[in-house]
Amino acid sequence: MPQDCIFCKIVAGDIKATKLYQDESVTVFKDINPQAPTHILVIPNQHIEAISEASPEDQVILGKLMLTAAHIAREESVADNGYRLVVNNGRDGGQTVFHLHVHLLAGRPMRWPPG
Amino acid sequence: MPQDCIFCKIVAGDIKATKLYQDESVTVFKDINPQAPTHILVIPNQHIEAISEASPEDQVILGKLMLTAAHIAREESVADNGYRLVVNNGRDGGQTVFHLHVHLLAGRPMRWPPG
Repeated sequence: MPQDCIFCKIVAGDIKATKLYQDESVTVFKDINPQAPTHILVIPNQHIEAISEASPEDQVILGKLMLTAAHIAREESVADNGYRLVVNNGRDGGQTVFHLHVHLLAGRPMRWPPG
Repeated sequence: MPQDCIFCKIVAGDIKATKLYQDESVTVFKDINPQAPTHILVIPNQHIEAISEASPEDQVILGKLMLTAAHIAREESVADNGYRLVVNNGRDGGQTVFHLHVHLLAGRPMRWPPG
């Protein structure tokens, strides 16, 4: 765990967040700067810097992130109306925290293009 | 394979697309209505209607979609500058084709919010 990673600290409970779910491999919490009525982050507990840095051994946890996002959408009652999942990678992607995270946005119609 | 699914037909080669990669489980091709200089779709060969319809048995293929997107970003030389991955689900997500697909957008700075 990189000492300066705020998401690692949220996983560990050293920084407060509104956690909606946590198990042995993933943590789910509310984005502190929401861009939609529902804006939730799904992250791996292990520190993966970005999707570009994921290795083939991460395939199962990457699938878990996607399934967890879909599960949380159901739990938050936004699945029926719909939602968008977003992963930013690097500068052009707009990545601001370098611990892989999946954004789950819902509660309003999402526009196109996606940014 | 649903008879009316255009992405199933692209997988099968019955509808033309600019394919960048295909193996036994995933197909990658250019979006016909690009929203960025690089706009590519990564889809499972099997018909999964949406991420909300994925089951736990789909975890491995979901991880494969993510790894493939990152791999293609490297192949297309957009990984260094960065990129965004987007999955739309249902009405509010803006899903228009009901065969699960991951958008890979790159070649320009992506804005925030993501739509």
